[in-house]
Amino acid sequence: MNGYEDNPLHRITHPRSVAFWGASTNFMGMGTIQLSQLLQLGFEGPVYPIHPTETKILGLDAYPAVKDVPGPVDLAVLVLPTRIVPEILEECGEAGIRSAVVVSAGFGEVGPEGKVLQSRIVEIAKKYDICFVGPNCIGVVNPHIKLNTTFFPYETKPGFVGMASQSGSFVTQMFSYLANIGLGFSQGFSVGNEAVTDITDCLEYLGQCPDTRVIGLYIEGIRRGRDFMRVAKEVSKKKPIVAFYVGGSEAGSKAGLSHTGALAGPDSLYDGVFDQCGIIRASSIEELFDFCWVLGTQPLPNGNHIAVLTNSGGPGAAAADAADRCGLKLAELSPVTVTALTKLVPGTASVKNPVDLTFSKNPGDYFGRLPQILLDDPAVAGLFIYCLIPDQRVIMSVISSQTPNDRAADLANEYIRGQCVILESLSEKYGKPVVGASYYSRSELFVRELHDRDFPLLPSPERAVRALGALVRYARTRQALLE
Amino acid sequence: MNGYEDNPLHRITHPRSVAFWGASTNFMGMGTIQLSQLLQLGFEGPVYPIHPTETKILGLDAYPAVKDVPGPVDLAVLVLPTRIVPEILEECGEAGIRSAVVVSAGFGEVGPEGKVLQSRIVEIAKKYDICFVGPNCIGVVNPHIKLNTTFFPYETKPGFVGMASQSGSFVTQMFSYLANIGLGFSQGFSVGNEAVTDITDCLEYLGQCPDTRVIGLYIEGIRRGRDFMRVAKEVSKKKPIVAFYVGGSEAGSKAGLSHTGALAGPDSLYDGVFDQCGIIRASSIEELFDFCWVLGTQPLPNGNHIAVLTNSGGPGAAAADAADRCGLKLAELSPVTVTALTKLVPGTASVKNPVDLTFSKNPGDYFGRLPQILLDDPAVAGLFIYCLIPDQRVIMSVISSQTPNDRAADLANEYIRGQCVILESLSEKYGKPVVGASYYSRSELFVRELHDRDFPLLPSPERAVRALGALVRYARTRQALLE
Repeated sequence: MNGYEDNPLHRITHPRSVAFWGASTNFMGMGTIQLSQLLQLGFEGPVYPIHPTETKILGLDAYPAVKDVPGPVDLAVLVLPTRIVPEILEECGEAGIRSAVVVSAGFGEVGPEGKVLQSRIVEIAKKYDICFVGPNCIGVVNPHIKLNTTFFPYETKPGFVGMASQSGSFVTQMFSYLANIGLGFSQGFSVGNEAVTDITDCLEYLGQCPDTRVIGLYIEGIRRGRDFMRVAKEVSKKKPIVAFYVGGSEAGSKAGLSHTGALAGPDSLYDGVFDQCGIIRASSIEELFDFCWVLGTQPLPNGNHIAVLTNSGGPGAAAADAADRCGLKLAELSPVTVTALTKLVPGTASVKNPVDLTFSKNPGDYFGRLPQILLDDPAVAGLFIYCLIPDQRVIMSVISSQTPNDRAADLANEYIRGQCVILESLSEKYGKPVVGASYYSRSELFVRELHDRDFPLLPSPERAVRALGALVRYARTRQALLE
Repeated sequence: MNGYEDNPLHRITHPRSVAFWGASTNFMGMGTIQLSQLLQLGFEGPVYPIHPTETKILGLDAYPAVKDVPGPVDLAVLVLPTRIVPEILEECGEAGIRSAVVVSAGFGEVGPEGKVLQSRIVEIAKKYDICFVGPNCIGVVNPHIKLNTTFFPYETKPGFVGMASQSGSFVTQMFSYLANIGLGFSQGFSVGNEAVTDITDCLEYLGQCPDTRVIGLYIEGIRRGRDFMRVAKEVSKKKPIVAFYVGGSEAGSKAGLSHTGALAGPDSLYDGVFDQCGIIRASSIEELFDFCWVLGTQPLPNGNHIAVLTNSGGPGAAAADAADRCGLKLAELSPVTVTALTKLVPGTASVKNPVDLTFSKNPGDYFGRLPQILLDDPAVAGLFIYCLIPDQRVIMSVISSQTPNDRAADLANEYIRGQCVILESLSEKYGKPVVGASYYSRSELFVRELHDRDFPLLPSPERAVRALGALVRYARTRQALLE
């Protein structure tokens, strides 16, 4: 096994310079769009467009061939018509380039002729010791060094989710989705036809990557079963893996086959494989990121008994119901806990679990004293908290306490930020997972603040609780793998 | 059974004037916030705050008692300490007011003493023929006449979803959520302790309401089982009912009991009841609104075979997989359809179902010719289409066709709007349901346009397909009820 920096995928995701085939002065060409995204994210090394006739592309000097480029090239990105890919890859090899992203489609996924062509580029790669991703992929992203070879703008922060996907969409089209929930990729791979680099290679590499705290996989079918299991078992001991697998149903399996040619297996087979390897299965791409959010930020719980804290009855009941359905239990609170809670809550509140405040006697307690009391209880292994601190409400509250109107917004923001800091600090302080939910979006300050602090504030109580359930499952299987 | 306008709930949701107890010059009082929301939405009739000492509240003249109010009062809203509610309700009765919303808590839900107090207000209501909602509720909303007695701002458009909820949160805290997906309530009820008006009454009333195309229920426990079933069966013949029930698990049932005192039953019992009545069960509040969106906008399908149209492999495979898991089948496309598709799509595309374009030969076909070919196929009962028309991409495309930059944005917007109009018109033209999905939010024009045209553009392929599955189930059970 290679170390992180010796891994050939490290070269692909950490180039100091890029040569780019397929961009032109046609703004709408796919290659042009991809090159423009690379520039837009602000890649800091030299970028060399290669084009037979054009000399200036997107403001950069273009070169007729890679041998004409004035400096060393670490990575080749090929967005070319299928038939000329072998020839260009050969030129890359001759020029000493050892890393490539082959975006071009029309290879193994389209039938026998494409398969022949694909074998040819694999041979060329071997001959020159080139490691490449693709073909028929959408590229790679490493926001930590501002690398984005895909054709979508990377809109979110550099993050901690390592992604390897048999669909390019589930890397690229997620940039915007992740921005809305304040998550980001550490590195992301669209593996395409997996001619040289497959999802197992990516998994092994992301397992080594220090920026990656959790790994997401989108799977239509695994090509090297034994290797995948060996690697996954090792990685799972160190960091969690979440997989979204669509090949288990008849329709899903057929769809995957025509997409990338991967062979699927029934759910029962894959569920068994996932269980043995400690992989947590998600039922949609959204759930994959829900799970990654919680698994990548929260400490492992010591058991499956949780507390539910809410000031809204419905969301509390929904959380309790979801807990029951995903293998979690509501902790029985100790008499000490109940006594401590009773002192702080109004008469209409329920101090049973879910703890439902109905309204807050002292709103400041909700994110501080109350969760602390619950997390102090040894019976509580983790906490779900329903979150709502609307800007307007707080501003009105500040105004009502005789503050001049022009200072109210600042004081309100300060208050909201303070509550978010307290809430975010709980999991580290108690060594127990804390997961929140809100139906509100980033237009509210508390949502932005919690997102930006990597506090998992999921879009609904059910999704938050299911993600907490995934964390409990991972804690269990990891323990089993270590023993 | 009362007609729509004779139904006492019509009086509550269509007052010409409102008297309001519990607002004051304390900005943060719950009553003050509720009154401010009523004013903010722009209720057009006179509003009379009642307060023992204050004479001006939120800019309105306040009156010491309801008998001092200078005009007739249609609706009383009571946000008062529990103990004085009976006395004030009596005053309302004496003043001839026959409709009320009792927001105050501390009644039946808190134990024997509260139960006695609740009986008392029920007696007073009977004595004076007052119909009221509550106590322990968050109010009612009828955006079509700008009525919002709750303490959250109504942020979304007047819509077609009638909601009756045993949690106030699932009316009020959804205003913002619904705004993000472009849905709105026709009318919404937080039923609280259901002392006089229960969820069955609301269901019957919403069944009559002409603005309501689909009904959402949040249920912790049904109090009048037989009546509920009788009403639900009748309503289901006319319009769909979607229910989110949390009482079926042990934890959910306990949480509901302490919330509103409602008695729950096991899932098996409720599933049976729902099935018999044609009610579609949702597994979360988000799914409830997903289902309402599709059930309230799309024609009923004639069968369970659908077509999946995508230009992204992963989302297409996810849709196919989700279809299989919720009782839908992928239609086998006729040779005519396959031939027609083949002419329009690139060589890398798959014309099997899912139809995966990989990329578009002519992007204009994607929302027009291609879905039309699919919907023309008699084997196709409904269509899922993956949607993505990013603003920036279209603007660049327009610029690349030699358009001056300053006109590009306008032309791009025109193009996007045109595509949305075509897509939205398909379901009516073919009499078959069409459901879309996108991971993008309202910051993109195509998302806003489709939302604003009431096209169901759900946040993921799985959610869209599951909602289509719900529509198929409703079509079946409705047919059975009618026979």
